[in-house]
Amino acid sequence: MLRGAGVQEDDRMTRFISELAAGIDPYVPGEQPKDRKYVKLNTNENPYPPSVNVTEAIKGAVDDLRLYPDPEVLALRKAIAEYYGNRMPELGGEGIGPEHVFVGNGSDEVLALIMPAFFSGRTIGYADVTYSFYPVIAGLFGVQVRHIPLRDDFSISPEDYAGSNVEGLAGLVICNPNAPTGMALSLADIEQILSANRDRLVVVDEAYVDFGTETAVGLINKYDNVLVVQTMSKSRQLAGMRIGFAIGNPELIEAVNRVKNSFNSYPADRLAIAAGIAAMEDTEYFDETCGKIADTRDRYSKELEGLGFHILPSKSNFLFAEPPALGIKDGTDAAYVFKKLREKGVLVRYFAKPRIDNRLRITIGTDEEMDVLLASIKEIIAEAER
Amino acid sequence: MLRGAGVQEDDRMTRFISELAAGIDPYVPGEQPKDRKYVKLNTNENPYPPSVNVTEAIKGAVDDLRLYPDPEVLALRKAIAEYYGNRMPELGGEGIGPEHVFVGNGSDEVLALIMPAFFSGRTIGYADVTYSFYPVIAGLFGVQVRHIPLRDDFSISPEDYAGSNVEGLAGLVICNPNAPTGMALSLADIEQILSANRDRLVVVDEAYVDFGTETAVGLINKYDNVLVVQTMSKSRQLAGMRIGFAIGNPELIEAVNRVKNSFNSYPADRLAIAAGIAAMEDTEYFDETCGKIADTRDRYSKELEGLGFHILPSKSNFLFAEPPALGIKDGTDAAYVFKKLREKGVLVRYFAKPRIDNRLRITIGTDEEMDVLLASIKEIIAEAER
Repeated sequence: MLRGAGVQEDDRMTRFISELAAGIDPYVPGEQPKDRKYVKLNTNENPYPPSVNVTEAIKGAVDDLRLYPDPEVLALRKAIAEYYGNRMPELGGEGIGPEHVFVGNGSDEVLALIMPAFFSGRTIGYADVTYSFYPVIAGLFGVQVRHIPLRDDFSISPEDYAGSNVEGLAGLVICNPNAPTGMALSLADIEQILSANRDRLVVVDEAYVDFGTETAVGLINKYDNVLVVQTMSKSRQLAGMRIGFAIGNPELIEAVNRVKNSFNSYPADRLAIAAGIAAMEDTEYFDETCGKIADTRDRYSKELEGLGFHILPSKSNFLFAEPPALGIKDGTDAAYVFKKLREKGVLVRYFAKPRIDNRLRITIGTDEEMDVLLASIKEIIAEAER
Repeated sequence: MLRGAGVQEDDRMTRFISELAAGIDPYVPGEQPKDRKYVKLNTNENPYPPSVNVTEAIKGAVDDLRLYPDPEVLALRKAIAEYYGNRMPELGGEGIGPEHVFVGNGSDEVLALIMPAFFSGRTIGYADVTYSFYPVIAGLFGVQVRHIPLRDDFSISPEDYAGSNVEGLAGLVICNPNAPTGMALSLADIEQILSANRDRLVVVDEAYVDFGTETAVGLINKYDNVLVVQTMSKSRQLAGMRIGFAIGNPELIEAVNRVKNSFNSYPADRLAIAAGIAAMEDTEYFDETCGKIADTRDRYSKELEGLGFHILPSKSNFLFAEPPALGIKDGTDAAYVFKKLREKGVLVRYFAKPRIDNRLRITIGTDEEMDVLLASIKEIIAEAER
């Protein structure tokens, strides 16, 4: 190995690695365990299976796998446009067609492609506590970042997205509802931010919007500076199929397309396209399962509060919860509860990061799974009090 | 629109686009027509369907789509390592495990991720006539390019990949067999290039290797500077499922992984993983269909030569063919034959580029499809001679 003497280097790093790749700090997704069966409340998956129409659509699409998929993913873009087209009057928008829609291999890929499309060599702003994937894709594509801190209660204040806070920024990323807090801005708040930033592109990441927040899709006709990003991984039960999309004015979509066509012409495979169309069309099942998850969330949020947890007001399919003081000496109470839950077969997510290192992010499962969680937490509290 | 006066700009370009995205020249994939039924010989798809085991594997994998796939794609990496592990003795290699394998969303994505992993801010070399996707991904990730011209007969000479031709280069990309020529280097030639470039990473793009060329996978233990890229889109009949992979020493794989985890943690969906494993395991069907395609290629190559075509010696699943002189006044004979074939319902690929603008790239279809092609060409020649 031709390495410089005295330089501390990762053992796994090849001498051929670029400076860029050596310097980036890759994202670490939530654990997908293989060692045993867990109650899995750690990666915000949906506890319910996809619509039966999705399974049928996949089985009906296996015949032409030898052929490339449509690189433009037109049929799925049409299905997404149709879903939102039907809702546009209630959302306050004028109209939406496939030219307003971009589809990628999960919303992470969509967000990643947005970086070079608009922000390479520029600076963007987002909250100090938000989705931890943003700094990773910013780093990969040479985008500088300025943090706009959440308020002390973890809320986003639209007033903070104006004036000197945003001076010199090319764009903003707002996660709504925010992750990992679960807290949402109202549509009026989002519009206030768009209106105050007409010369900045505002990316509204709505991964969790369907569990109780108003979408900004209705604003795409009025504002050419908004790009709404959504995923089928959460509310549409398709984390395993990798489908994300962006909605905005056609010029913005075309810019993302330019980058997509410079990276991978065919991000969505034939079965993902078929599954996505079926998922968009079964609005009844979608409404039913989103409603069930919101109900479960609100009920078990109260249960956890009854056990002494402090819970942020969530509009998402997860809770961000501070455990009661357990008198733990090494590390935070949250880190302790996280570890104990894992031993008991319940996975939640813990982030050892400033401001949030005494909280757990708990995905909303079925009522049965939430009962297991509650029982396990009661045991942990009782054991700690001994 | 806040645009500078007098600057010629694409009408579709948003004022928010980055300089990078405005300056890139996206890849244009071969047409996926929707207007009518064609004999489709334009995107090097396999004329045979995937193994029946693939279809069964997909149907058996539809149950857990609500859950994320394994971000490490371990099961498919193991299947690929096992396939090549069994062949390692004949390939001259020592061993291969999943740590030697990276899986991405098609080999285009794998190639794209390789750019920032090793080459951002550096210069690489590849042939002047080769896969036209390379300059696109180089452009997106700030990689400079030096062309190393093919010889007059379109062959690659390993002697040209040494000395002043490669001075200052961080890496090389060799497409073997080359596209769109179809011509192959021997394994000895590849090893000569690796040996002469021990401090450069050599990416060997083997998208078409299974139709008659020796793979370089057996060299990964001996050379830490080789990264072999393959795809399941051609020889494994899965263009519709988007699966590509890279094989090399574990340090190289780890570098690509760092970039993957900074772009999209889950590039392969659950059904693609299931399909890929089944495709790697059915070696009998794989050998049979690759053999049939090679036979068809060699027979119809002679047929076209009988009609006056000049065909480069192909080891791939396509022919790069110069038509006989037809006395066409506007444009090349190849452009004329391309257009006429399309009118007759036969799609092939034409590149209006230096050195190759009088050639057609013709994918090898079934014998029946090749008969339609031949008959159509005979008509076109007869019509032109009138």
